[in-house]
Amino acid sequence: VPARFQEAVLPRGTTTAIWDPHEITNVKGTAGIEWAVGASEGLSLDLFVMVPSCVPSTSPAAGLETSGATLGAEDIKRFRDHPGVLGLAEMMNFPGLLGGDPDVLAKLMDFSGMKRDGHCPGLSGKDLNAYGVAGIHSCHESTTLAEAREKLTKGIHVLIREGSCARNAETLLPILDAYTSAVVSFCSDDRNPADIAEAGHIDCIVNKALHAGGRPEDALRAASYAPSAVYGLDDRGALAPGYLADVVLLKPRSHTGSGVVDWRAGVDIHSVYKRGKRVDAAELAKVKSAAAKGPAFSGKNLNLPEASAATFRVAATGGASGPRKARVIGVIPGQIVTNPLTRDLPVEGGAFLANPAADVLKIAVLERHHGTGGKACAFVEGFGLRGGAIATSINHDSHNVIVVGDGDELMAKAVNRLRALDGGIVVLAEGGREETLSLPIGGLMTEAPPADVAVRLHKLKALARAVGCKLEEPFLTLSFLALPVIPTFKITDKGLVDVSQFKIVDVSA
Amino acid sequence: VPARFQEAVLPRGTTTAIWDPHEITNVKGTAGIEWAVGASEGLSLDLFVMVPSCVPSTSPAAGLETSGATLGAEDIKRFRDHPGVLGLAEMMNFPGLLGGDPDVLAKLMDFSGMKRDGHCPGLSGKDLNAYGVAGIHSCHESTTLAEAREKLTKGIHVLIREGSCARNAETLLPILDAYTSAVVSFCSDDRNPADIAEAGHIDCIVNKALHAGGRPEDALRAASYAPSAVYGLDDRGALAPGYLADVVLLKPRSHTGSGVVDWRAGVDIHSVYKRGKRVDAAELAKVKSAAAKGPAFSGKNLNLPEASAATFRVAATGGASGPRKARVIGVIPGQIVTNPLTRDLPVEGGAFLANPAADVLKIAVLERHHGTGGKACAFVEGFGLRGGAIATSINHDSHNVIVVGDGDELMAKAVNRLRALDGGIVVLAEGGREETLSLPIGGLMTEAPPADVAVRLHKLKALARAVGCKLEEPFLTLSFLALPVIPTFKITDKGLVDVSQFKIVDVSA
Repeated sequence: VPARFQEAVLPRGTTTAIWDPHEITNVKGTAGIEWAVGASEGLSLDLFVMVPSCVPSTSPAAGLETSGATLGAEDIKRFRDHPGVLGLAEMMNFPGLLGGDPDVLAKLMDFSGMKRDGHCPGLSGKDLNAYGVAGIHSCHESTTLAEAREKLTKGIHVLIREGSCARNAETLLPILDAYTSAVVSFCSDDRNPADIAEAGHIDCIVNKALHAGGRPEDALRAASYAPSAVYGLDDRGALAPGYLADVVLLKPRSHTGSGVVDWRAGVDIHSVYKRGKRVDAAELAKVKSAAAKGPAFSGKNLNLPEASAATFRVAATGGASGPRKARVIGVIPGQIVTNPLTRDLPVEGGAFLANPAADVLKIAVLERHHGTGGKACAFVEGFGLRGGAIATSINHDSHNVIVVGDGDELMAKAVNRLRALDGGIVVLAEGGREETLSLPIGGLMTEAPPADVAVRLHKLKALARAVGCKLEEPFLTLSFLALPVIPTFKITDKGLVDVSQFKIVDVSA
Repeated sequence: VPARFQEAVLPRGTTTAIWDPHEITNVKGTAGIEWAVGASEGLSLDLFVMVPSCVPSTSPAAGLETSGATLGAEDIKRFRDHPGVLGLAEMMNFPGLLGGDPDVLAKLMDFSGMKRDGHCPGLSGKDLNAYGVAGIHSCHESTTLAEAREKLTKGIHVLIREGSCARNAETLLPILDAYTSAVVSFCSDDRNPADIAEAGHIDCIVNKALHAGGRPEDALRAASYAPSAVYGLDDRGALAPGYLADVVLLKPRSHTGSGVVDWRAGVDIHSVYKRGKRVDAAELAKVKSAAAKGPAFSGKNLNLPEASAATFRVAATGGASGPRKARVIGVIPGQIVTNPLTRDLPVEGGAFLANPAADVLKIAVLERHHGTGGKACAFVEGFGLRGGAIATSINHDSHNVIVVGDGDELMAKAVNRLRALDGGIVVLAEGGREETLSLPIGGLMTEAPPADVAVRLHKLKALARAVGCKLEEPFLTLSFLALPVIPTFKITDKGLVDVSQFKIVDVSA
């Protein structure tokens, strides 16, 4: 929750943050936005809200996913005048925008005169022009330097993102120079508390820029001045009279005896001052403000039937048995885009079987908001699990239950364990070992201190590794496999999605 | 008037302008602001208004000048929500601000959250810090590079001004580089139509930057992107989808046969497009929109008694005759700041006489708003007039009548000619030659085409030169000699002002 988030990031030098609460909003609807706006007030950290533009991430008419709520232009309009709101959050539904969806256009018009954030991975040429014409001038989804350069050339403010799973800093940092540092910013996105504690938050990207030989003035401008200026926060982002006394003292890791600094070695945070007051991590941890308390959300988080091995049957077209071509989601480590693969898989009794030896595992999404029992199962390559399963209710953006595993029985067990927990993350191993993280607020958030969450995450990761997982960040990687606005193959409760076509496709290739 | 202003600047590539109508407001009060806001609408040029913060330029309590109107915080507050208004105009009354004048602070608070422009020539150190703390983050009054650097370091957006009289570009342009070009802008200020037609408007500063060896990208960014960004006009200042199609095509003046451009030679305007439509100067001249018509201001502009030679008597303290030390305003060509000089002047009958042979002439300001007959007379060095006089009703910022000349009779004649004209500029020569420019709107503006005004200005200047005037821009130089917020010696209808002390001082030194 925001009051615990500040505990994680303020000591790392993030003194202002701007967030899009579309995760809790996908689960709880406008009550999620109301909670987010309230929970952002009264903190030591300055926390601003962008109003979620895409709940769910795709046009409801497209029928690509089932979310907890569906918000139209009329639902979100009333939030624009709240003093903590800076504008409209990432417009992920770029196909809807390009197609002239009236509700998408209404949202953009309702927030005109305010910042309207973008999200347009891979968009280029005239499609990207149309996006800019619609008034969207930012994007944090560039994955190649050429993509970032085209966006910048077209007046799109490039946010260089370093999440736990989507790591774009090293690829994109070469775009940073004396000119661009005024219009390029650093940002996080799905960065887990363990990574923040160990590698840092925005300071992590500053260090990556320095390691790569970037000039400190460029890196620090992209970390402070540029985002402040672009979001119209003109009382911060610089050290000057009339600006907030938000000050981060840095300690170079290496300098010669003569006082010359070797910036390539990076910097450590010496101390942080927020509005002139030194940030004390221990004091922050003691703050149990109203905002840190759980929201008044009623009902349980997970509303889905008990799972069994039969839940994960994947029908194959054609004959009852024999190998057949299947569409398989190809995970790319450190990226949230996926490869659209085709693999030969065994078929028995008219159903595809997994091929764990070749690292092709079953993956399923189960609807959890409305108790419909809706579900879809397909295949994924890249997890490497043997004798293990992972299930979570963090599952972009509709946050249904997603599970991947070696064996239908184990997958069912993982889902049922998550169900008993009412949301969070579960890792199971054959033989009964398990690790869990409970996320009681919408199945997404917790009031637990970030340090405790980091400990849990380490245990979860250790067990995942013990059962063969090859991914550095298995949980967020898994949670992005359901986001049908990021290319190419994804899975929702409605089925396997080919994002390049924006439609459900059959597992049989 | 704005509709004629666009005729002058649009063909020079200025596609958006932001103005402070404090001149007409000093004469006509809030009716002046109402007129300015209305006259800024419906033009081809995008024209935004900053609401005058200092009418008159100094705190009325200081009693330094008599303006046509005195506007307090309550008078101007209502203009903040007009869609054509971007914020509060230049806070010239920095002594009032530093002294905690409640009305000054109320104005700044009423416009919080909007741009609040500065004007703080020579302010530095802790005084400059206080100015920034009050929320003012721009200034167009730097005259030295060190001053501009200190301001920039303190988060003050530096506007490099090139007026007809105050010419700061050559001095300040070295501040421009790849970093600062995001937060340094070019601007004009009291630039007459002749200079705009011949040397250009903002394009003139671009060319000065190029002549000095500046990079075109730095100069063009300070001419377009930086001012747009700083004033929150995020739909312009760059060529990109979703930005206004305001395009200026430039033609380099020199390039080698191989196509390599020698930027030092400068650029010419090839063509200008405003909102996608090519600007046609001849078409603009035909536009006689409602905004081009005169305002509904009633009454005559000049309300002052007939002048005579006796009007210009300057009493000297001490004996009835013999040379005596007098304070003299020292004009600095191309600057609006003046030197505080002391000169020995002859005294006869208890009054100082001018010393035209040493270029020490009489200068007087006569109250023209309320018919009080208030006036003050003192001495100025630097005009060089012999057998001539200049009078004008453009006279910053209270716009009383100001006159300088060689001989009390000739000065009286010039004032009376201006009075018959009801405002404008008059140059008289012994023997009866005269040139005039009529400014029927408040004694400040005209509906005449800029080209006609330029012709008149050339004739006025030629006659001024013929009677010995050494100044390149005698009229605007003269008009700034009454502005008691620019150091050091100035003259108002109340007397000789020492701006460094912010008080009226005796002519006798």
